[in-house]
Amino acid sequence: VAVAIGVDVGGTKVLAVGVDLASPGRVVASSRVATPGGGTEDLAAAVVAGAVSVADRVVASGATVVAAGVGLPGLVDVDGCLRAAPNLSRGVGATLRAPLGDALRVPVVVDNDANCATWAEVVAGAGRGAREVVLVTLGTGIGGGLVSGGRLLHGGHGFAGEPGHMVVDPSGAPCPCGRRGCWERYASGSGLERLAREAAGRGEAPSLVSPEDPRGPSGERLAELARAGDGAATAVFATFAGWLGLGLANLVNLLDPELVLVGGGLVDAAELYLGRAREVALSSVMGAGSRPPTRIEAATLGPEAGAIGAALLAAGEGARSRG
Amino acid sequence: VAVAIGVDVGGTKVLAVGVDLASPGRVVASSRVATPGGGTEDLAAAVVAGAVSVADRVVASGATVVAAGVGLPGLVDVDGCLRAAPNLSRGVGATLRAPLGDALRVPVVVDNDANCATWAEVVAGAGRGAREVVLVTLGTGIGGGLVSGGRLLHGGHGFAGEPGHMVVDPSGAPCPCGRRGCWERYASGSGLERLAREAAGRGEAPSLVSPEDPRGPSGERLAELARAGDGAATAVFATFAGWLGLGLANLVNLLDPELVLVGGGLVDAAELYLGRAREVALSSVMGAGSRPPTRIEAATLGPEAGAIGAALLAAGEGARSRG
Repeated sequence: VAVAIGVDVGGTKVLAVGVDLASPGRVVASSRVATPGGGTEDLAAAVVAGAVSVADRVVASGATVVAAGVGLPGLVDVDGCLRAAPNLSRGVGATLRAPLGDALRVPVVVDNDANCATWAEVVAGAGRGAREVVLVTLGTGIGGGLVSGGRLLHGGHGFAGEPGHMVVDPSGAPCPCGRRGCWERYASGSGLERLAREAAGRGEAPSLVSPEDPRGPSGERLAELARAGDGAATAVFATFAGWLGLGLANLVNLLDPELVLVGGGLVDAAELYLGRAREVALSSVMGAGSRPPTRIEAATLGPEAGAIGAALLAAGEGARSRG
Repeated sequence: VAVAIGVDVGGTKVLAVGVDLASPGRVVASSRVATPGGGTEDLAAAVVAGAVSVADRVVASGATVVAAGVGLPGLVDVDGCLRAAPNLSRGVGATLRAPLGDALRVPVVVDNDANCATWAEVVAGAGRGAREVVLVTLGTGIGGGLVSGGRLLHGGHGFAGEPGHMVVDPSGAPCPCGRRGCWERYASGSGLERLAREAAGRGEAPSLVSPEDPRGPSGERLAELARAGDGAATAVFATFAGWLGLGLANLVNLLDPELVLVGGGLVDAAELYLGRAREVALSSVMGAGSRPPTRIEAATLGPEAGAIGAALLAAGEGARSRG
């Protein structure tokens, strides 16, 4: 049995998985550790340790490790170096290809984490069979991955697929990136919580104000309230869906995918916003009514999508380079 | 000598050219007529007449016509049918492949006009040698074309590359498309004139107000004034450049091209805004300072780019289909 190792490096955890390549969505072993607090060397050590731990179990089960991939949360250049990472600045400069290749003796691919998740969905998830796909991951920020002609787009330097800092309101909410009105200030998990704080601050939403939680409700709490029928929480999700749909329409106008997938942590609450976001997007794209409606759906591989995709991407690249 | 025919259909004129394929930027014959006022049959007749007129001259000169292409101003589906066209609604439904193929007996390709212009710049203009390119055409609206891996991106249905209706300010200027704050309300030729009218309306710009021109200054007049040092016109171009840069940053974040080309009618005034737009875009992309600066330059093929590109696209497709 051929297995590829995939490692997803996040701001809080490093997840390593082994993926059975004969059944590409199937994880045969996994390992999870907290993201180390130190610099690039500590990060590399954690990635190698996670990958080796999974690889050892894979080999002990009689399977063979054929490739390894790593997904990193930021701009990854064509040499696999992390060049910018808003939520993992201490990892900037990390180059993981050599240490992981030395440890496992297999071809290694390093890519952006949302690119990896996109590839996982296309090979083994909600995007199976589609050749023109855009995925957006709704988490702390908004990540993205673009597939055209059945291949991931990387752009000129490896950095393609960053919709989160698309400015959609230049006089809007300040963004840590230094600009105002980036899409992820509205349509990400942190954007959802910001919209709730704003509604509470305007005095419109007493149900969203709790003395135990002066910073406002979490996304999970908002989802609970909305599911229980709370009007203020429902209104926040409606506003959120409008912003999500607005940005998705921008992406459909530009890329005309056959399929848009919405992934990331917020996908667990998709029933609270995805229908409305779809309506907004499809009614506002150029030529709406004169074109086939783009499918807009929830991703299905969950929080392991990035690690699975890193493994599948590495296996595919390895196959190509041996081809 | 092998020649391809290219026809560019605009809201006001139909331009047909013959392009020497041994020297792909070179136009050996051309024909221009006003766009007919009637429906799709009149439009097809005008396209065929223009193409035949050029083809006759090409053949009379001893050369051979090997392919023909048509660029249309709107959403063109994979079958070559015009599905939506904000500035040529009477042409919606036009299918030109069959009539043109019957008339010329060569393979025919029909594509979006800005896609054609993009291909022309990549094969024979400012984009030569580049494989990751975004072109935006600044005219009445904003058109676009995307090249990745050296190929035009068409998306799932043929409609990719429409940045003009990217919403960049949802409470902004109303757009004929029904939404508010589309990028082309700010960074196109009509957007420039709108910005000037707004400045004049606020009483900030008496030099932009003329009794002969109650609808405000044209883009050409604004450029004249700015070149002559008029402060109000210069300020309008600075605002325009800011909006252009904002949208270009969105495109660079999403697609990471090695080269962004700015074409269309407004490119004649590029010295009045392109430097500033470049500064705004490059200073505001994600990871600015940690990534190689994307080149942002003026397109060079001028108003014939669309027709030239239609010819080159047809010649390339013909070569591919002949294997």
